[in-house]
Amino acid sequence: MNNWISGYNNTNNLVISSRVRLARNLDKMPFPIKLDEERSNDIISKVSGACTSIDELQNLKLIKLLENDPIDIGCYLEKHLISKNLMDQFNKTAFLIDEKETISLMINEEDHIRLQCITSGLDLKGAYDECNKIDSLLESKLDYAFNEKLGYLTACPTNLGTGMRASVMVHLPALTIYKEIPSLLKTLTQFGITIRGLYGEGSRADGNIYQLSNQITLGLSEEEIISNLEGVLSQVIDQENKKREICLEKYKFEFLDRVYRALGILTNSIIISNRESLELFSYVRMGVEMAIIKDVNLNLLNELLVITQPNNIKKSIGKEVSEREVDIERAKIIRERLKIEKED
Amino acid sequence: MNNWISGYNNTNNLVISSRVRLARNLDKMPFPIKLDEERSNDIISKVSGACTSIDELQNLKLIKLLENDPIDIGCYLEKHLISKNLMDQFNKTAFLIDEKETISLMINEEDHIRLQCITSGLDLKGAYDECNKIDSLLESKLDYAFNEKLGYLTACPTNLGTGMRASVMVHLPALTIYKEIPSLLKTLTQFGITIRGLYGEGSRADGNIYQLSNQITLGLSEEEIISNLEGVLSQVIDQENKKREICLEKYKFEFLDRVYRALGILTNSIIISNRESLELFSYVRMGVEMAIIKDVNLNLLNELLVITQPNNIKKSIGKEVSEREVDIERAKIIRERLKIEKED
Repeated sequence: MNNWISGYNNTNNLVISSRVRLARNLDKMPFPIKLDEERSNDIISKVSGACTSIDELQNLKLIKLLENDPIDIGCYLEKHLISKNLMDQFNKTAFLIDEKETISLMINEEDHIRLQCITSGLDLKGAYDECNKIDSLLESKLDYAFNEKLGYLTACPTNLGTGMRASVMVHLPALTIYKEIPSLLKTLTQFGITIRGLYGEGSRADGNIYQLSNQITLGLSEEEIISNLEGVLSQVIDQENKKREICLEKYKFEFLDRVYRALGILTNSIIISNRESLELFSYVRMGVEMAIIKDVNLNLLNELLVITQPNNIKKSIGKEVSEREVDIERAKIIRERLKIEKED
Repeated sequence: MNNWISGYNNTNNLVISSRVRLARNLDKMPFPIKLDEERSNDIISKVSGACTSIDELQNLKLIKLLENDPIDIGCYLEKHLISKNLMDQFNKTAFLIDEKETISLMINEEDHIRLQCITSGLDLKGAYDECNKIDSLLESKLDYAFNEKLGYLTACPTNLGTGMRASVMVHLPALTIYKEIPSLLKTLTQFGITIRGLYGEGSRADGNIYQLSNQITLGLSEEEIISNLEGVLSQVIDQENKKREICLEKYKFEFLDRVYRALGILTNSIIISNRESLELFSYVRMGVEMAIIKDVNLNLLNELLVITQPNNIKKSIGKEVSEREVDIERAKIIRERLKIEKED
């Protein structure tokens, strides 16, 4: 697996990353919501202990939220390696992470274990195989809550069965501009697929980036879930590409204008909000995906998606700063990165 | 005198051009509004005949509006060499112009003769001297309507006396952004000075460029009118510069952001309206005037002010085109000119 931020692979340039996560719980233990701090810590010890005892998992580093700087933790959130929910329960939660930052294992999020593998581009099979491998290793050391009829037991019934959620981050600017996402959501629901914003449930689709994921976990095999999602995804991408083509044909100059202005503003602005920069990245990305812009690559755009987020900026500055200072530093980072890229 | 568009002189970088015009009428002839086409043509013949008979004025070319392409005529308007009013009366009007396009003599505008000299930067004295010289030459061949008490007689009583209007085009972005123009207008009125938009009476101040001119023509000498205008202008410029300094001190990054974004959009846009480009030129100009932007010069910005106007664009394309096509060509011209400039 490749790190989704730095290890872009060109399988499908509208898909930024593929992610599979498995929800698992320890047998005969209350779900995290019912645990006090002490028993939460027992779970953390049990799960991290299991990893330490497995050769293949010794590279995972344990990070307890309570013991770490919130800015550092926020950076992991911005890299899509942990969830907002995990951060909110900071006095009871922890996570394990590998050096490449493709594997993360959240402890005491909604379930005792949320194992996720995230990779660049479209490679759900790769992410699933990695998850499955780690899951089997863990299962050899831990007693999972499992029921013959219901499969893996989870805190929320929507995760029962495989406990698996497969998702892709996909870039859909044309469908967004033409306000077709709501009707798309309706159609996808019929296929058991849902569509969410950049940071998952309840988040905005800043940067016209969406998460497509399966809603159904029960009664389907893992392979079926993945092939179902891939099938739907491929149709969504077709729709997005068709919309772009129509737009480029009908409104060529307005289309190019949007793309180039975005690049012009990003390479020149002195102060820029997160929301605006995400929107402009989207238009530049669309230009790159369509081979209109040739001197910027998608790898850099993936990197910018993360390094321009508030916690990553604060971390690079090395201290807590005001929102305005973040916006100034963001503009500087973008100018410098896009300039270096162009001079290559 | 220097052509105001191409011959920029650096006397005061907020003043784009200086203009003096004299209103004159032929004795015992009705004012233009009372003339039919035939008698209007008599005036045209008389005035242009006088010029032909004067050695120093033989370089003036006669252009009758009825006999010329409206696009060509529109280009002269956009260069501030003729007025909208002259164009509206196209079946009765004409103008004389020199090769350098610093002198223009409108015939049958509001008065029989509207002689104007326009030069780059701040040089009202130069413009006046030139006007005065030509006026004396004409007076040796033509009988002007003149009254000992009222001075030169004009169609509108506001022009009686000297018949002179002195004006400067001055760039006031900071005062505009801070909405101080209305209160400035009030103050200026007390000094007999008025402030108008880019294309004179009733026009918008697109590009944050204003015309400051004298309102009073009677009871003051030409020298007094000029020195009064220069005095007021100098205070207006001080106010503008102070406002810029305060702004740069208080909101440095927001200020620089405005300047650099303008440059970023201008060098990248694919379709741009006249109004937007004028606004962005203003911010780039402010950046150049304040030595923030160093690789663009004011000469180029003056040139862009004119060559991006609709008629000049249509003339460069060589045919009547839609507004959208004008907006596309405008963006192209701006990209190319700003690129060439930067590579110098």
